[in-house]
Amino acid sequence: MSLPAAGAGVDLAPFVDLAHRLADAAASVVRPYFRSGLEVIGKQDASPVTIADRDAEAAMRVLIGKAYPDHGILGEEHGQERTDAEYVWVLDPIDGTKSFISGFPLFGTLIALMHRGRSVLGIIDQPILRERWVGVEGRPTTFLGKPARTRACTDLAAATLYSTAPEMFRGADAPGYAKLRGQVKLPRFGGDCYAYGQLANGHVDIVVEARLQPYDYLAMAPIIEGAGGRCTDWQGKALDMASDGRVCAVGDPRLHKDVLRALAG
Amino acid sequence: MSLPAAGAGVDLAPFVDLAHRLADAAASVVRPYFRSGLEVIGKQDASPVTIADRDAEAAMRVLIGKAYPDHGILGEEHGQERTDAEYVWVLDPIDGTKSFISGFPLFGTLIALMHRGRSVLGIIDQPILRERWVGVEGRPTTFLGKPARTRACTDLAAATLYSTAPEMFRGADAPGYAKLRGQVKLPRFGGDCYAYGQLANGHVDIVVEARLQPYDYLAMAPIIEGAGGRCTDWQGKALDMASDGRVCAVGDPRLHKDVLRALAG
Repeated sequence: MSLPAAGAGVDLAPFVDLAHRLADAAASVVRPYFRSGLEVIGKQDASPVTIADRDAEAAMRVLIGKAYPDHGILGEEHGQERTDAEYVWVLDPIDGTKSFISGFPLFGTLIALMHRGRSVLGIIDQPILRERWVGVEGRPTTFLGKPARTRACTDLAAATLYSTAPEMFRGADAPGYAKLRGQVKLPRFGGDCYAYGQLANGHVDIVVEARLQPYDYLAMAPIIEGAGGRCTDWQGKALDMASDGRVCAVGDPRLHKDVLRALAG
Repeated sequence: MSLPAAGAGVDLAPFVDLAHRLADAAASVVRPYFRSGLEVIGKQDASPVTIADRDAEAAMRVLIGKAYPDHGILGEEHGQERTDAEYVWVLDPIDGTKSFISGFPLFGTLIALMHRGRSVLGIIDQPILRERWVGVEGRPTTFLGKPARTRACTDLAAATLYSTAPEMFRGADAPGYAKLRGQVKLPRFGGDCYAYGQLANGHVDIVVEARLQPYDYLAMAPIIEGAGGRCTDWQGKALDMASDGRVCAVGDPRLHKDVLRALAG
């Protein structure tokens, strides 16, 4: 597969190839643990979800180290190394651990590649349903290898809004979320990363979240923007390592300003 | 397949066979409409989810009418006929239409068989994931043909609680739900019927809902009780056509009293 040079003049094709192998490796580790036993909530050392999380990230780190020993890595489970490198991989082996332990196949493995602080590649992989979204800067996003495309929606009053859980919107974030929620047609909870995927596929119009970590959101922007949408923080700024964890994704860029205005409270 | 007589001395085997055929027929109708286009929210006449809903129920009604023309039918889409019959089928072709239109494969086809007002057979079928739960009075519940079993959980403080959406708990129902939510370990929204299935499978401890219709809940009791749990209204009474739409399902019967007490506010 040959890809055109990205905006920065970089050929991303070898990295896309590696990213697929990372997702494959994580999926192989994670799958046997899903619905494997009487799960416990939280991150006790011996729980299946914790073992799957740790081992999947370890497997991805080995592959990155072999292919590009000079690349940096930031992972949810095993911390960071060389995050000042030109390329940094950002890994969340199981985003949506609560879905995982409840037997819901909506969790995902998230993989992002940062180039000089900018997210240029993102993957959402659902290993049980074997569904994968791939976003690469300057290229159309794919779902199961075919182009994914957001849908048109220019009116908040017609929009579907997803957020993982109401607990995300506490304190200063509560009024803005409440205002947005009151303006959309269908507000729903329970999406995890799967909601971003369905936004890229044109079935959801808005995903708004808060209190996320970089490994929760850095994969999203390339996927959503390559499908025709926008994915920023609540001020409309590009997401990076230093973002405040508040994410606003829209399928139709014309809706972006209205969503930001509502979130401003 | 030969089943022992149910509590009422009735051989349910032929009805189980028909129920499987109903679920198969509904699935064949529903599958092509999932993620089929730019969905609209609500029940406009021409929307794919409405067509799928109506046609799937119509297909099931034809099969029931051929096999047992004297049985009654209550369906979400096409109303009721002979609901004073000894046997009444209760059908919800797409429970979770909001999940359906958002591209989430968590909706389900719900089928219940009432015998003299008591729910003796229930099916939850997820046609995209091809996952099916079957509950028959006096028999172990099955998931994908194998026994499903709830897990032990005797402490609210360790429990996972699912409910489809916060809007369910308005007015008089709000304080009880809030009290329960505050006492559990992990409260989550977004389950639809899938949460009852995962409760039967031992991955979720409590499902509490309100404002449900008979076709939303009548399939649940045989599935959950045959997996070792309990499924009643908020007063602890068996669910029937006349229940008030408030449902309390627990995986471990020892937790039932504590959940009811919290719900009492």
